[in-house]
Amino acid sequence: MPTQWEQRFAQRVQGMKSSAIRELLKVTEQPEMISFAGGLPAPEVFPVEQVKLASQKALTEHGEQALQYGATEGYRPLREWVARRMSRGSLKLSVENVLITSGSQQALDLLGKILINPGDSVIVEAPTYMGALQAWNPYGPNYATVPADAQGLRADELDVALQAGARYLYVLPNFQNPTGVTLSAERRQALSRKMRSAGVPIIEDDPYAELRFEGTDLPSLLTLEGQDQEGIYDGNVIYLGTFSKILAPGMRLGWVIAPPEVIHKLVQAKQGADLHTASFTQLIAYELARDGFLERHVDLIRQTYRSRRDAMLEAMQEHFPAQVQWTHPEGGMFLWVTLPEGIDATDVLRNAVEQNVVFVPGESFYPDRSVLNTLRLNYSHDQPERIREGIGRLARVLQSFCYSRV
Amino acid sequence: MPTQWEQRFAQRVQGMKSSAIRELLKVTEQPEMISFAGGLPAPEVFPVEQVKLASQKALTEHGEQALQYGATEGYRPLREWVARRMSRGSLKLSVENVLITSGSQQALDLLGKILINPGDSVIVEAPTYMGALQAWNPYGPNYATVPADAQGLRADELDVALQAGARYLYVLPNFQNPTGVTLSAERRQALSRKMRSAGVPIIEDDPYAELRFEGTDLPSLLTLEGQDQEGIYDGNVIYLGTFSKILAPGMRLGWVIAPPEVIHKLVQAKQGADLHTASFTQLIAYELARDGFLERHVDLIRQTYRSRRDAMLEAMQEHFPAQVQWTHPEGGMFLWVTLPEGIDATDVLRNAVEQNVVFVPGESFYPDRSVLNTLRLNYSHDQPERIREGIGRLARVLQSFCYSRV
Repeated sequence: MPTQWEQRFAQRVQGMKSSAIRELLKVTEQPEMISFAGGLPAPEVFPVEQVKLASQKALTEHGEQALQYGATEGYRPLREWVARRMSRGSLKLSVENVLITSGSQQALDLLGKILINPGDSVIVEAPTYMGALQAWNPYGPNYATVPADAQGLRADELDVALQAGARYLYVLPNFQNPTGVTLSAERRQALSRKMRSAGVPIIEDDPYAELRFEGTDLPSLLTLEGQDQEGIYDGNVIYLGTFSKILAPGMRLGWVIAPPEVIHKLVQAKQGADLHTASFTQLIAYELARDGFLERHVDLIRQTYRSRRDAMLEAMQEHFPAQVQWTHPEGGMFLWVTLPEGIDATDVLRNAVEQNVVFVPGESFYPDRSVLNTLRLNYSHDQPERIREGIGRLARVLQSFCYSRV
Repeated sequence: MPTQWEQRFAQRVQGMKSSAIRELLKVTEQPEMISFAGGLPAPEVFPVEQVKLASQKALTEHGEQALQYGATEGYRPLREWVARRMSRGSLKLSVENVLITSGSQQALDLLGKILINPGDSVIVEAPTYMGALQAWNPYGPNYATVPADAQGLRADELDVALQAGARYLYVLPNFQNPTGVTLSAERRQALSRKMRSAGVPIIEDDPYAELRFEGTDLPSLLTLEGQDQEGIYDGNVIYLGTFSKILAPGMRLGWVIAPPEVIHKLVQAKQGADLHTASFTQLIAYELARDGFLERHVDLIRQTYRSRRDAMLEAMQEHFPAQVQWTHPEGGMFLWVTLPEGIDATDVLRNAVEQNVVFVPGESFYPDRSVLNTLRLNYSHDQPERIREGIGRLARVLQSFCYSRV
C-alpha cells in the first residue's frame, strides 16, 4: 500500500529510478572491495596544492566576487577562457556561446528541460551514458536507439529514427561512456552532414576529450559544424565540456557551447534550477586555467590513465576466458566487456560481490535494458596493482560462468 | 517569425520568463546607479579570511574528499551538523532527514520536479518569492493565491484553495521575500493545524531565519510539526534552509529537512540534476560550522542589517510622500512599499532609472501579476549613506507621481 507521501509524488517520479551505479557505490565502501563500478578519477593526480594556491589567490584578489551571488551565465573571464580554448580552425566562439554549469550533468538536465515535451523522440546510442537517461526521464521522452560498433554510432542506421521525427541526437564521440569506443573520422563527417540536412540538432557530450593517450585527436562534431560558420557560432551542435576530468569533479564545473539563442533559454532554465554555479569554484578554476596549469596537468592524467588501462588490458588478456571479448579504448576511463550470449551480467555481479570485486552490468546503459551480457569496467580510479588483483578475482568468477555452460 | 531554434524549444519554455530582477541587475552595474533591486548580502561582512583558513584546512586534511565525486545526499558531517542544529524541543532530526542542495533555489526546483504534475494546484502567498514561481513554472502548476496582511498569510482564507485540492502550500514565515512581513505566532499554530488536518504538506522556505534584529524568534512550522513526532521526523512540513545568508551566497549551499521518503525522492531527482553539490564548498562550510564560527558571525550580520534597515526607514519617513505606505521588517533583507492606487510601479521604475536608482516592481511577485502599485526595496547590500542617498532620489520620483495625481 502506498504511504501518504508516495501518493503525493508526481507521476514523473516513476521515471526516476535510483542509478544502479550510485546504489552499487554505496555497498562498495569497504576497503577490501575492489570497485570497477564507479567513474571516479584517480585521486593521486588531484592538484591539491595548486587548488590551495588558487583558492587563496581568488579570495585575496576577488574576495567579494568569490563569495557573492554571480551572473547565471557564469563568471565572465572563465566563459571567455572556454570560448578561446574551444575555438579551433574556422570555428570562432564568443562569450555569448558559453554557459557555465554545475557539472555537465546539469547541462543534460537543463537541455531536457528546454527541449523535451512528453512523448518527444530523442535519439541515443545503444548503449549510452546512463546519467543522460536519468536526467531526461523526468521529462518523458521516448528513446530511439541507434546501434554502435567498434567505429562508434552507425550513422547509416539513423534514417528510420530521423524519419519518425526527433528533438535531437545525443552522442559521446570520444572514449564513450560506457564502451570506451571512439567515433571514427569518417562517421563524424557523415553524422554531421546527415543531422544538418535533417535539421535535427546534435548534443555532443565530450567529457573525456582531453584524455586521449593513444592515437591522434579527431575533430569534434562542433568543429565540423563550425567550418561553415561566420561570426558568432550559430550551428546545429550543442557541445558539453567539463572540468571534472581535467581538474576535479568535486568542484562541479562544466560548460555548454551552443548558439546564443539556446544559451539564452538555458540561462532562463538555470535561473530557476540553482540561480548560478558557485562563484568561488569558478574563480578557482579560472585561476588554474589562465596560467596554463590545466594544460600541463592533463599530461599527468593521461600518463596515469594509460598505465592503468594497460594494467587492466594485460590482466584481462592473461586471465579472462577466451569466449569473453572487450574493447581497447584509446583514452577515457572505461572499457566494455561482452560475455557469451546467455550469461546475465547481473548474475555475474552477484557472485563477484562475494569475491569483493564489482562493476556495472551493461543493461543500465540501454534505455530498454534489453542487453544482458555486457558490463562496464572503470580503470581510472585504482592503482595498477589493485587493478590486476581485481581483474584476477573477476576472471575467476567469469571462468565459473563460462565453464558451467560447457 | 520563429527561428529554427525557437521552433525546437519545448512547450514548457513558454513558462520560463527571464527574471525581472536578473534583467534589472544587468543594467545596474554602473557605479552611479543605486540599486535596491537585488537581494545581495552586505559584502562588507563576508568572512573572507575565515573562508581562506577553512579552504586550506579542508584541502590539507581532506584533499581527496574535497576534490572527488561525493554522495548525492551531501557531505555526511555537514548533514549531521544541520540535523543537530535544526533539532529543537521535541523535534528530533536525523541525518536521514537532510539533503544538501546547490542553494535553496535548487531545493525549489527539485520539489517541483517530484511533486508537480501539469495542472496541479499549488498554494502560495500573494505576493510570494518570484524565484519559486520561476522554479516551478516549467512543471506547469496552477497557482492558488492566499492573501497576506501585516501578520502574514491569512490562514482563515485557505479553505477555498484547500477544498479545490492542492499539492502543497508554500510559505516564507520569517521576514518574507518580498514583503519583509513575519507570520504571527497565532497564525503559525492555525496554519500548522489546518494543513495537517487537510493532509496537504507545507513547504516552509526560511532563508532569513537567523537574521532577526528586533523582537523575538517564533517557532518554525517545522518545529510545531515536530511536537507530535517521535523517532525520525516524518511530518507534514518540508523545510528549506540556506548558507547563503549566514555564510556566503557564492558557495551555493542550502539544505532540505523532510521525511526520509521525501529525501529519497529528492536524491533521485538531484542525481539527474547535478549528481551532487560541490564537495569542496561543503567541506568549507562544515569547517566554519563545526567550530561555532557561523553562530558568532551571524551577530555581525544582524547588526549590519539592522543599521541599514534603520537608515532606510528613517529616510523614507523623512522624504516619502504621505500617501505612500511601507512595512517595518523585524529582520531579513527587504521591505515592501505600497503606492496610492492607480500608480504603476513599472512607470515609477522607468523614471527612477533616469535618476540612477532602481527597485523591483511588485507585480513580479504575484503569479497573475495583478497588483501594480507595490514595489520591493532591498536594504542589506548598500551602506547607510548610500541608502539615504538612494531613498532621497526615489522620494523625488515618487513625489512627482503623487503630485501629478492631485
